[in-house]
Amino acid sequence: MSDPIKRSHPGASLSRLVEFGNLVFVAGTTADDKSASCKGQTEQVLKKIDGFLKEAGSDKSRILWCNVWVADMAEKEQMDAAWQAWVDPNNKPARATVESGLGSPDTRVEIMMICAKS
Amino acid sequence: MSDPIKRSHPGASLSRLVEFGNLVFVAGTTADDKSASCKGQTEQVLKKIDGFLKEAGSDKSRILWCNVWVADMAEKEQMDAAWQAWVDPNNKPARATVESGLGSPDTRVEIMMICAKS
Amino acid sequence: MSDPIKRSHPGASLSRLVEFGNLVFVAGTTADDKSASCKGQTEQVLKKIDGFLKEAGSDKSRILWCNVWVADMAEKEQMDAAWQAWVDPNNKPARATVESGLGSPDTRVEIMMICAKS
Repeated sequence: MSDPIKRSHPGASLSRLVEFGNLVFVAGTTADDKSASCKGQTEQVLKKIDGFLKEAGSDKSRILWCNVWVADMAEKEQMDAAWQAWVDPNNKPARATVESGLGSPDTRVEIMMICAKS
Repeated sequence: MSDPIKRSHPGASLSRLVEFGNLVFVAGTTADDKSASCKGQTEQVLKKIDGFLKEAGSDKSRILWCNVWVADMAEKEQMDAAWQAWVDPNNKPARATVESGLGSPDTRVEIMMICAKS
Repeated sequence: MSDPIKRSHPGASLSRLVEFGNLVFVAGTTADDKSASCKGQTEQVLKKIDGFLKEAGSDKSRILWCNVWVADMAEKEQMDAAWQAWVDPNNKPARATVESGLGSPDTRVEIMMICAKS
């Protein structure tokens, strides 16, 4: 029998949260209020991710891998200010941050991650 | 002894398909006929991925994580039309779609994924 | 009890190396000497990655998945020349290479990977 996969928060194209074995996959997450600055959007994204991880029986101390996309590298400092205020200082994940066009011009940041269950 | 890794479809730089434990990694996949539209290219890519997953003893209902790159975010709707016609409606993966320059100007979409074996 | 995660080389935002079970996650890695060409930077990056993998009890024959970002797709050939001189010819990973803005204008290449322990 196949190992079970749990999928939550389905949308038209993707599930926001996928659990398999002791791994948790969080889809590329953007802010709901896109009038916010890159820093404000990052804070919104990280709050949403906190919720997803809690649902999956994980938390921010268990992030393994993270891909951050910023719409403008000049705003990376804003993203990092919100990130560093949030990340568990003793449990920082492997991460890469690159600049890419995002889903809409007012989307300043998108974050995707792989975590371990607690 | 190390857990075995199976690698298939080697090219000059990469293997198109890598299997490790109950995980399957599919390399960034692009269309063979790059004269097609973004939608047509996505259809080609997803057909190729179906073949890779079948070889690895997996299928599209077992995708965990997916990164989609489009050459132009204005064409994301075309990619999503092909994607939504293909994806298992009950088993959608975590996914992120961003805009990046791809391997050639006529490459409109590239897709990479991590799946679970069936 | 949670499965343990080992994190090494912490910086302000991330850990350069994360180990979980039989998986190793290497953060987005860039060259120290950014006056080098894309080829030279790639050589530097791969040398750093060799060191990280050794620390984690892995090596380049055990790479599963790799994301390469180049600042300019016109320089992909340079990256690939350094990559192909380095990669284990019998053990090539799944890989995707896309063009994205990187951390600074002189950063020509960034590489992130997931590997298996030896």
